[in-house]
Amino acid sequence: MRLVTYRAGQSEARLGAIADGNVIDLARFGAKVGVDLPSTMLEFIDLGPDAVVSVSRLIAHCKGQFPLGSVLPLTNVKLLAPIPRPRKNIWGIGLNYVEHVAESSRTLDTSSNLPKEPVIFSKPPSTIIGPGDAIEHNADITQQMDWEVELAVVIGTRGKRIAEADALKYVFGYSVMIDVSARDCRRAGQWIYSKGQDTYGPFGPVIVTADEIPDPHALNLSLTVNGVTKQSSNTAHMLFKIPTLIADISKGMTLDPGDIIATGTPEGVGAGRNPQEWMWPGDIVVATVEGIGELRHPVVAV
Amino acid sequence: MRLVTYRAGQSEARLGAIADGNVIDLARFGAKVGVDLPSTMLEFIDLGPDAVVSVSRLIAHCKGQFPLGSVLPLTNVKLLAPIPRPRKNIWGIGLNYVEHVAESSRTLDTSSNLPKEPVIFSKPPSTIIGPGDAIEHNADITQQMDWEVELAVVIGTRGKRIAEADALKYVFGYSVMIDVSARDCRRAGQWIYSKGQDTYGPFGPVIVTADEIPDPHALNLSLTVNGVTKQSSNTAHMLFKIPTLIADISKGMTLDPGDIIATGTPEGVGAGRNPQEWMWPGDIVVATVEGIGELRHPVVAV
Repeated sequence: MRLVTYRAGQSEARLGAIADGNVIDLARFGAKVGVDLPSTMLEFIDLGPDAVVSVSRLIAHCKGQFPLGSVLPLTNVKLLAPIPRPRKNIWGIGLNYVEHVAESSRTLDTSSNLPKEPVIFSKPPSTIIGPGDAIEHNADITQQMDWEVELAVVIGTRGKRIAEADALKYVFGYSVMIDVSARDCRRAGQWIYSKGQDTYGPFGPVIVTADEIPDPHALNLSLTVNGVTKQSSNTAHMLFKIPTLIADISKGMTLDPGDIIATGTPEGVGAGRNPQEWMWPGDIVVATVEGIGELRHPVVAV
Repeated sequence: MRLVTYRAGQSEARLGAIADGNVIDLARFGAKVGVDLPSTMLEFIDLGPDAVVSVSRLIAHCKGQFPLGSVLPLTNVKLLAPIPRPRKNIWGIGLNYVEHVAESSRTLDTSSNLPKEPVIFSKPPSTIIGPGDAIEHNADITQQMDWEVELAVVIGTRGKRIAEADALKYVFGYSVMIDVSARDCRRAGQWIYSKGQDTYGPFGPVIVTADEIPDPHALNLSLTVNGVTKQSSNTAHMLFKIPTLIADISKGMTLDPGDIIATGTPEGVGAGRNPQEWMWPGDIVVATVEGIGELRHPVVAV
C-alpha cells in the first residue's frame, strides 16, 4: 500500500491509501464496510504488521469500486507529512555512502576513513514538514544550508537488541526525507543544531509499506536544485545496510513503532562541491527515491 | 508547587502535588472541589502558567484539610519520572561549566577553549527513568559509563526566537537529571549513542514550579557514587545561563510545553579523574539539586 496523511479542505489530518489516482480515506472506508480502521498513520502503525495485510486485502477486494464518501481524487487533497508529528526524535545516519565520506572529509571536519560503526545523530520531531511546504532559510543563523536526499525507514514494531537477520520484519515501510543541514551551525562537532532546525526534515510524500519494496537496497535516489541534478545514486551503495542500522541502534536504544531512520545521503551535497554551493531563498529542491515518490520544496527567507 | 507523577498500587500513572508529606491527587482533588484538573503532568503543563497560580491557590485555601480520597501518604506511593514519556527528544547542553570544559579536554576529544555558543545535543525520550529505577549497564556496549548531575529545566510555553529577557517566563519548573554518558560510545564525535541509551536519563523526583525557585542560578548540585562525593558545585557556575540557552535553542528550533533542557554538568565526572572512574553494576549513584530533591539509582547489569 501507498499510505498518506492528507487534508481535504479545512478537515483535520486523516489517513488514506492511494489507489488509481484516488485517496481512500481508511477510517471512512472501514465504516462503510463494517471494519474499524484507524484515522491516523501512527494508529495504523501501532496495529502491527497484520493490519497491513488485512487492509490490503480489503482494498483489493473492492476491485476499484469503493463506497461513496470514502474516496477523493488525489488532486483535490493536500498531502501532509505521512507522520506529521513523530513521537520522538528522528534517527539520522551520517557518512553512510562511501563517496559522501570522501567529499565530507575534504570540506567538513569529518575523517576520510570509512566509519567502523554507523554514525548516529538525531533530528527533533519539530523538523518535519510535508510535501511542498517551505524550507525556512534564516540568514541570521546560516549561510551554508545544504541538501541531502535520503531513503527513510519507518519502524513498525517495538524492538530492542534486534538481530540483523530479523531486522527487516521490524520495518513498516519506506519514505523519502531531505536531511537539510546548515553546515555552519555545528556546535563543538555536534550536528543537532545544523540538522535540527524547524522545517529541516521534509518527509513524504507517502509511506510505501514494506511488502511493496522487496529490496530497499536497489533504489535510485536523486536530488535536483532548480532543475539541476546534484545527487544521483542508488541505495545499493549504503555502507551500513538497513538491517545493520536497525540492529546497531537497537543494541542500546529501543526502537518504537513510528520511529523514522533517515539512512544517510550519497555524494553530491553542496559542501562537497568546488566551489561549494548552498540553498538560498527562491530555490526549488526536488528529492526522489525510486518506487516511493518525489518531494518538491521551495526555500523561503524567514 | 512540588509536582509529581506517581503510582499507587497497580493504578495508572497520575499527577500529584506534594504537601506536608502527602501526595494530593490533583484530578481527584479537583473533582471533590468542583474544578476540572488534569490527571497527567503534560496535560497540566499544557494549561499554561495561569493553571499553576490557580491550583496553588486552591491548595493553599484548603489549609491542609484535603477532601477524603484525594490524599495519600508519600510513603505509600511510587514516584515515577515527572514526565514519564516526553513528547520529543530531551535537549542536552555539553561543556557548560568552566571546570568541566577543562577536565573534558584532558581526557575526551573536546577542546580546552570555552565554547562560544551552547553545545547542544539530544537524548531520546526512551532514556527517561524515574526515581529509584535501575540504570542499565550493558558491558557489551560500554566499559566507560559515567555520571553527570544536572539541573533540568521544563518548558511551559511554546516559543520560537524567544528573547533572553523573556526566557524565564517560558519555564514551567525545574527538576534533576543524571545525564548518563557512555564515553566509549561516541560515533565520529556524535554523542547520541553515548548519552541516548535506554535508562540513561534518570529524571525527577519532582518538578518544582518556577515560582518557587526565584534564582535557578544559585542552587548547589552534587552527586555521590557509593556514598563518596564526586561532583559538588553550584548552578551559579554555568557558562551559558538558562535564558541564554532558551534563546539560543529557540533561535532555530521551536521549544514546546514539556520540553526538557538538561543544563550541563559541573566538574567531577569519572572521565576527568586520574585514574578515570566509571560506574559498574552494584553501584549506587545519588544526584541532588538544592531545593528540588534527590535521585538515587542502582546500576545493574543487563
